[in-house]
Amino acid sequence: MSLYFDPVKTQNRARAGVIHTPHGDILTPAFAPVGTQATVKAVPPRDLREMGATLILSNTYHLFLRPGPDLVAEMGGLHRFMGWDRPILTDSGGFQVFSLAQINRIDADGVTFRSHLDGSARRLTPESAMKIQEDLGADIIMCFDQCPKPTDYAVASAAVERTSAWARRCRSAHADDSRQALFGIQQGGVYEDLRARSSADLLALDFPGYAIGGLAVGETKQEMVATLDFCVPMLPENKPRYLMGVGAPDDLAHGVLRGIDFFDCVLPTRIARHGAVFTPDGTLNMGNLAFARDDQPIDPTCDCATCQNFTRSYLRHLVKARELLAHMLLSIHNLRFLIRHMEAMRAAILDGDGRLEAYVDMFLRRYLRGETG
Amino acid sequence: MSLYFDPVKTQNRARAGVIHTPHGDILTPAFAPVGTQATVKAVPPRDLREMGATLILSNTYHLFLRPGPDLVAEMGGLHRFMGWDRPILTDSGGFQVFSLAQINRIDADGVTFRSHLDGSARRLTPESAMKIQEDLGADIIMCFDQCPKPTDYAVASAAVERTSAWARRCRSAHADDSRQALFGIQQGGVYEDLRARSSADLLALDFPGYAIGGLAVGETKQEMVATLDFCVPMLPENKPRYLMGVGAPDDLAHGVLRGIDFFDCVLPTRIARHGAVFTPDGTLNMGNLAFARDDQPIDPTCDCATCQNFTRSYLRHLVKARELLAHMLLSIHNLRFLIRHMEAMRAAILDGDGRLEAYVDMFLRRYLRGETG
Repeated sequence: MSLYFDPVKTQNRARAGVIHTPHGDILTPAFAPVGTQATVKAVPPRDLREMGATLILSNTYHLFLRPGPDLVAEMGGLHRFMGWDRPILTDSGGFQVFSLAQINRIDADGVTFRSHLDGSARRLTPESAMKIQEDLGADIIMCFDQCPKPTDYAVASAAVERTSAWARRCRSAHADDSRQALFGIQQGGVYEDLRARSSADLLALDFPGYAIGGLAVGETKQEMVATLDFCVPMLPENKPRYLMGVGAPDDLAHGVLRGIDFFDCVLPTRIARHGAVFTPDGTLNMGNLAFARDDQPIDPTCDCATCQNFTRSYLRHLVKARELLAHMLLSIHNLRFLIRHMEAMRAAILDGDGRLEAYVDMFLRRYLRGETG
Repeated sequence: MSLYFDPVKTQNRARAGVIHTPHGDILTPAFAPVGTQATVKAVPPRDLREMGATLILSNTYHLFLRPGPDLVAEMGGLHRFMGWDRPILTDSGGFQVFSLAQINRIDADGVTFRSHLDGSARRLTPESAMKIQEDLGADIIMCFDQCPKPTDYAVASAAVERTSAWARRCRSAHADDSRQALFGIQQGGVYEDLRARSSADLLALDFPGYAIGGLAVGETKQEMVATLDFCVPMLPENKPRYLMGVGAPDDLAHGVLRGIDFFDCVLPTRIARHGAVFTPDGTLNMGNLAFARDDQPIDPTCDCATCQNFTRSYLRHLVKARELLAHMLLSIHNLRFLIRHMEAMRAAILDGDGRLEAYVDMFLRRYLRGETG
């Protein structure tokens, strides 16, 4: 198997480890920037490397519609196409089909939908989602799943059943993990029995890694954390655990404490394009008049390329003038903020002796005071 | 005087030299990228340094309106504000006042206009244009001038008279070139007698450098070249000569052949944001379907960061997907293309023996065949 997980050290449920992939190692816990359309919006690969990004995520749904998996394969695969030689993960397209596209029909076999780009009729099935991801060539690929509203039991239950059936078909279509490791996706909403059923179904298929899907999609933060309390221990300790679509700094801490190894989210780059930045004292909006003559960096303790070179005053000017450079500089800061946060949690786990709990406690106290103040 | 020009070598009218400024040397002939609002659109300072940019231009009109010269001064001046430690030139605001703003009144003393941002009433005079540029702190600053349509004799003649009067007032307001060198701007449209009168007026004021204004603003390329034939020799040989707002690759060659030392233009970054790139065979539009599966860089002979790392196929995808990274990568290529073009002309001048004419001849034959084909 090409992908395997070394759990280097644990601290209660939290784990520090290494995921080995064909394109290099991912030190965990880790945060994966999202490159929806084969580019992390406004951030060149060089800057991603320099900030310590290892894994990035790209979206099968978007690449399926444009430029098409056959084109990416012909150009040598996604790594070569986008100039990223470190690990890549592609999702299955399931989430976007259910959230972005106009769905015409869901049946046992798959989903027929209209492209949000041009209205053309398209279809995804477990088998085609495997084929597309094989063409794209990411190191980690995902089962085609159904991700419903997490707080309706009947809906969540039906989604578990369908996700399990589709996972079996994905596993049959992609049985060899030597080049690309296929992860199963646990569903079940906020319900412990459904998460247990979903886990049991997936574990029988012996995936090299497992994701937790269906969270951070509408439930409260309390519900998410309570769900993680019971759903993470259902997954095997010797396999990487991936919490999908979660990227708020406080949620990352809650996830790591509960045994998650990596995360992805558009949040840091999306809020950057709206002028917002993470700081240890909560998020700031750089368009704020208060920063007009502020000669400090966004965060004086930050080592990112933006904080090393530019003041809040200049960044506010770029935001107000709607300059493209604002998107790049704020995205770089936000991504580095999350990556540093993950590095700090990894170091705390390796230090042992309750250091992780102490770090998270201090981090949350300061960060959340800023968020609510 | 802080700024002086060493003419290292000439070849017929063309000159290779060095302009010494408080923020370092500019090897000439040179092309200056434009950072309208204190940022070269979509290109971070680091990439500008790496591509060999020395001088960049920023616009007094835009910075006057936002963020304001007092703010820039308080933040340590334009170099520190925008993170650029090499030479900067600011224009006077005259060109934008006459082209962008809604003008309320032009009188002998100055121009009253409405801001294109918020409609507020603003005024620029020769004295205020000096004060604003002193607050901004660029190495090279420009006289407040009037730049009219170049092919109406009466209008061009009146503009020369006004520009000369304003140049005298600018010189009085800024008599000390030790920190910032004030350039005069020759006007006169396409008319030899007007250019001669303008030059005579300016030379009497003994500026450390001279610009040629009022070209590339509506006249034909033939008219521009014919005007350069007579207007450049009117300027002193021991001072730098700056052709304003010219950046087409063929026009740069025509200017260098006729003795211009440096140029600025928004063209390379503006066309990049519309998906167009310079190549030795003319401009290409990267959105073209022909590039969908083209595994080559934009220009296999180009050493820019874009051509070193990305294929036409990927760039076309970014353009079609309207990704921000497209603006950055295409801008980097176009700027480096012009800077390499200038470096090649400088090397040819230093080589002597008609090498410049040979280079330009080969360059234009290939470039223009692509442009018209």
